[in-house]
Amino acid sequence: MQVVCLDLEGVLIPEIWINVAERLGVADLRLTTRDIADYDELMQTRLRILAREGIKIGDISDTIRHMTPLSGACTFVDELQKLVPLVILSDTFVQFAGPLMRQLGNPTLFCNELVIDEAGSIHGYRLRQQDGKRRAVAAFHSMNLEVIAAGDSYNDVSMLNEANSAAFFRAPKDIAAQFPQFPRLENYEQLLDFIREQIGR
Amino acid sequence: MQVVCLDLEGVLIPEIWINVAERLGVADLRLTTRDIADYDELMQTRLRILAREGIKIGDISDTIRHMTPLSGACTFVDELQKLVPLVILSDTFVQFAGPLMRQLGNPTLFCNELVIDEAGSIHGYRLRQQDGKRRAVAAFHSMNLEVIAAGDSYNDVSMLNEANSAAFFRAPKDIAAQFPQFPRLENYEQLLDFIREQIGR
Repeated sequence: MQVVCLDLEGVLIPEIWINVAERLGVADLRLTTRDIADYDELMQTRLRILAREGIKIGDISDTIRHMTPLSGACTFVDELQKLVPLVILSDTFVQFAGPLMRQLGNPTLFCNELVIDEAGSIHGYRLRQQDGKRRAVAAFHSMNLEVIAAGDSYNDVSMLNEANSAAFFRAPKDIAAQFPQFPRLENYEQLLDFIREQIGR
Repeated sequence: MQVVCLDLEGVLIPEIWINVAERLGVADLRLTTRDIADYDELMQTRLRILAREGIKIGDISDTIRHMTPLSGACTFVDELQKLVPLVILSDTFVQFAGPLMRQLGNPTLFCNELVIDEAGSIHGYRLRQQDGKRRAVAAFHSMNLEVIAAGDSYNDVSMLNEANSAAFFRAPKDIAAQFPQFPRLENYEQLLDFIREQIGR
């Protein structure tokens, strides 16, 4: 039996932090792992910016509620789930993903969590685990599941490497060029075709 | 982060083999693990009956297409998936579950597979793995996920034991009485309340 593991941001929904930065008008919240490679350092920087600006979870939720999944993503998820089990593996936070996941029909998502106090201030975050995408694929293997994976960036590469078959989806050219073993797919039709080929349907 | 693991037959949908036996009018297809305790022996018996009666996958699919999930199950699954990731762990076969899973909105399902030839004859089956429900819970633990589980029968007990918290759902009294450590829930409202309590929402 197979399972499909997909990244969330950039594959099914837009980049959340970038959208939040734009909608709240806080330029330095646009920083990503391309600017600060160390994830914990990046998150601590983001948390300091949120505290500096007095931004609470409600402000962020309000902006996320105005976001929609990428064009065609809802239909793609529907079609995919008719064919094969889906688990989304993401580095986002459960408190961010909620409104967008509802629009996608609430497929199964394993991600991280923000630590939020009763007043809505964000004090920290809890990683599900280090190297969580790769370890999830390994855990699916221990369930005797074949894993088909797709993602768009560096933080997906260990997942793609661990999977039985894998592809980039809308990956930046420079990243895709470093890992030529993965086909570079650009639209949901191609991704669905790739998955159909792997499951023989 | 948490994940909910649910059994399928008896919890969200009716028992498939019993329905197939009734609709096809083949009494001895009603045999279950209560009649033949060894699962492989039971399945080999079922396969012999299918061959004897000339029953193909199409005949079974036709009867399954007339089945519906248990009353309230679709709403329950919708509500649950807004709260927490769901993975259904079942001993059924992917070729049986399809039509009913579609009615439930295609939540993520890990189960077994039938070996079917091009003419639709069923020649065998492939277990995902031995003791697959318990091992799936163990694999979720290796992803640093807390597992909340519910099932209705003997084949769920190893899953319930391995989970962080667990309940019986509509379990026969005699089975539930042997495992008094698990609360015995009778309707979806109770099950949703139990899960809400575990996730603190």
